[in-house]
Amino acid sequence: MPTIKYYVREGLLPPGELSSPNQAHYDETHERRLRLIRALLEVGGLKVAAIAEVLGAVDDPSRPLHKVLGAAADRLGGAGVAGDDADADAANATVEALIARRGWHTHESNPAAADLSRALAAMAWLGHGAYTELLDEYADAAELVARADLGYVDRRVAVEDRVESVVIGTVLGEAVFSAMRRLAHVDASARLYGTGAEEGPGESGEPEGPS
Amino acid sequence: MPTIKYYVREGLLPPGELSSPNQAHYDETHERRLRLIRALLEVGGLKVAAIAEVLGAVDDPSRPLHKVLGAAADRLGGAGVAGDDADADAANATVEALIARRGWHTHESNPAAADLSRALAAMAWLGHGAYTELLDEYADAAELVARADLGYVDRRVAVEDRVESVVIGTVLGEAVFSAMRRLAHVDASARLYGTGAEEGPGESGEPEGPS
Repeated sequence: MPTIKYYVREGLLPPGELSSPNQAHYDETHERRLRLIRALLEVGGLKVAAIAEVLGAVDDPSRPLHKVLGAAADRLGGAGVAGDDADADAANATVEALIARRGWHTHESNPAAADLSRALAAMAWLGHGAYTELLDEYADAAELVARADLGYVDRRVAVEDRVESVVIGTVLGEAVFSAMRRLAHVDASARLYGTGAEEGPGESGEPEGPS
Repeated sequence: MPTIKYYVREGLLPPGELSSPNQAHYDETHERRLRLIRALLEVGGLKVAAIAEVLGAVDDPSRPLHKVLGAAADRLGGAGVAGDDADADAANATVEALIARRGWHTHESNPAAADLSRALAAMAWLGHGAYTELLDEYADAAELVARADLGYVDRRVAVEDRVESVVIGTVLGEAVFSAMRRLAHVDASARLYGTGAEEGPGESGEPEGPS
């Protein structure tokens, strides 16, 4: 467990007020920031550099929010696999068509569109190009979650806390949805193939899981 | 970019057949495995140790599939934040009630339930205990995605490729959904608060994003 001093040294946490030459005093704002750092690090799996970028954006109200979100989502990598250019071009076209078909408001600089393209290109590169069949069902689900998220922020979060809340929701909400999707896979598999959930796939010949 | 030799040394890839003392021959199976490693590493964001565990499980048909999935999902951390025990107990009870309410087939050893509890405990610890209001909307969305995933596997993937396919879908499908959720957030925000997507949150006073 990294110490408070480490977070201060890395610029994640402002230094406490020195109450004596060897003792710093940390107030409630510090405590709240410290919790956020630890949750992003330990549950969200963000790297220290990504957290520094996210917190810088939280503290700078002139930074566009989609850049904060991009930083918060950095843990997904974003380098992409080399693959081939044909896969990348096809994936870009697929994402553009999806956004147009759904009528989604977006903007050129939203990194999520590029992240989606890269993930689809990687799928194609692994022989799962047909996976794009599922995009509208994924989009229905994403809209459901996004409406729920926005409703929560609107209903429950004071305006001055919303940027921080968006960061928490983006990173931890993803951990929540990921765990739920895996729970729902086991259930969907049990319904499709019958139970036998304790068996290995080699025994039952059938997976519990997704694509 | 790590080399093939590095993957062989780390036990991710079997050594090629030596065609001369200084030259190894890699066949199609190697190439396919190499692609999987690179996608899990670069798009999925898994660590080398997690990939080794996932591949070990893929290659060992007696290993229960939910353990493969647990390994594939390791990047979400799982350590959890310290928080307090009351948050953890409340989160466990919430997850148990959710599973019962949804009628989800599951089993004690499914790590997804514990991952979900940890994420909810972290939310509560950050002052967002009310976030549990959203769980049924998240669950509806997770069921939608899981049914789509299973349908794809059932329709498109040969039985002998299903375990590998489950791993790909769990890790890359998560990157796909994560990017879509962020796209849908921007759209939901534009619909709720009007556009102005290029403004910083400090200018518009309203977030684009989630809880």
